[in-house]
Amino acid sequence: MKFSRIPTAAIARLSRYTRALEELDAQNIKVVSSEKLAEYCEVNSAQIRKDLAYFGEFGVRGVGYFVRELLFEIRRILGLNKEWNLAIIGMGNLGCALIAHANFARQGYRFVAAFDVDTEKIGRILPGGIAIAPMSTLKKESLEKEVEVAVIATPASKAQDVVNQVVEVPIYGILNFSPAQLHLPEGFLVHHIDFTVKLDRLAYRLSHLTRSGRNPGLNDKPWISKHLL
Amino acid sequence: MKFSRIPTAAIARLSRYTRALEELDAQNIKVVSSEKLAEYCEVNSAQIRKDLAYFGEFGVRGVGYFVRELLFEIRRILGLNKEWNLAIIGMGNLGCALIAHANFARQGYRFVAAFDVDTEKIGRILPGGIAIAPMSTLKKESLEKEVEVAVIATPASKAQDVVNQVVEVPIYGILNFSPAQLHLPEGFLVHHIDFTVKLDRLAYRLSHLTRSGRNPGLNDKPWISKHLL
Repeated sequence: MKFSRIPTAAIARLSRYTRALEELDAQNIKVVSSEKLAEYCEVNSAQIRKDLAYFGEFGVRGVGYFVRELLFEIRRILGLNKEWNLAIIGMGNLGCALIAHANFARQGYRFVAAFDVDTEKIGRILPGGIAIAPMSTLKKESLEKEVEVAVIATPASKAQDVVNQVVEVPIYGILNFSPAQLHLPEGFLVHHIDFTVKLDRLAYRLSHLTRSGRNPGLNDKPWISKHLL
Repeated sequence: MKFSRIPTAAIARLSRYTRALEELDAQNIKVVSSEKLAEYCEVNSAQIRKDLAYFGEFGVRGVGYFVRELLFEIRRILGLNKEWNLAIIGMGNLGCALIAHANFARQGYRFVAAFDVDTEKIGRILPGGIAIAPMSTLKKESLEKEVEVAVIATPASKAQDVVNQVVEVPIYGILNFSPAQLHLPEGFLVHHIDFTVKLDRLAYRLSHLTRSGRNPGLNDKPWISKHLL
């Protein structure tokens, strides 16, 4: 199994499969066909089979996938069979929103440290029990708390300065929420969150309907029937 | 040109192409090869050519793409040659962070209204000059301000209640930031933002390195050279 040959898009889809499988598991559904799972994930079923085939054989012909088993296997493949320790940097509105957002804990991501430069914020205890620490202690705290990934939630103007400090300590990846273009050492793992990419998909679908003369007017049903999409 | 046959993934990639083209344009680069653009977008160049071929002929053989022209065309295809009016619902930390986030305005998404149920917040004027309005005025305000998309930033426990109100007014799509499972009328356009999907990609790459015995120890360079990924 050559991990490096697996397309990034397949990895992104595995994430989506886990979200769907978790939902099925929460509904106490034990077995799911690849067709049904595909529908949940908005891909086609051949795609699911192909993505999973990179990693081994899953599912039973004529039966489907055992929900919990497949969830366990995909989480193992993705490296989610362990908790990942996160530090958040920048405790403004965005930082406070992220640390409180249920999705992280649900997926096994644990905030273990929080940093800011604002002396008024330093020392404040956050809902999870973490005290906001000064940026000057980034290295010491990251080592002590075994931080693996830094989540950057600073304003754009401060992000590069923060990144320069993060690459000097043993933190292995960055999730960047700031709207800044970051300069990083070659090969440093970074992912950027751009909220607007999904808005582009909405805009595309809405404007397509408008162009087809199917613009949902104010007197119409406000939503658009699925077969048009 | 049959828009409905175009895969969702191609639309998502078009968004990424625009981000890269904007960056090239900001650097005053006039022409880019599909190979260079592909590198920027982390896809292969055949993919770019295939995605663009859904919409027409772009680029000049042996020369490449004219950056501004291609950017203009893709933005037109995506429906981004107009501004889209957004309302934000839920003015906690997340709502405040989103309304101030530079990416929206940069991509042509304009917040025109903000709603909350908290009487202490109602009437407060936000940095962009918008006053927080009560949820009871959702319909009236949305009509007046021609809201097209609702951005939901409430706690999970309030999100379904908000959605039930949104589908009753002429708003055509939802971007959901709450970690709630929403029940929507068949065909209503909704996209969910899950911050952790990109963390899964980081986790996958980091854990793969660990498994290969290439775990970057505390004494190593903290980042990982690119050829390993």
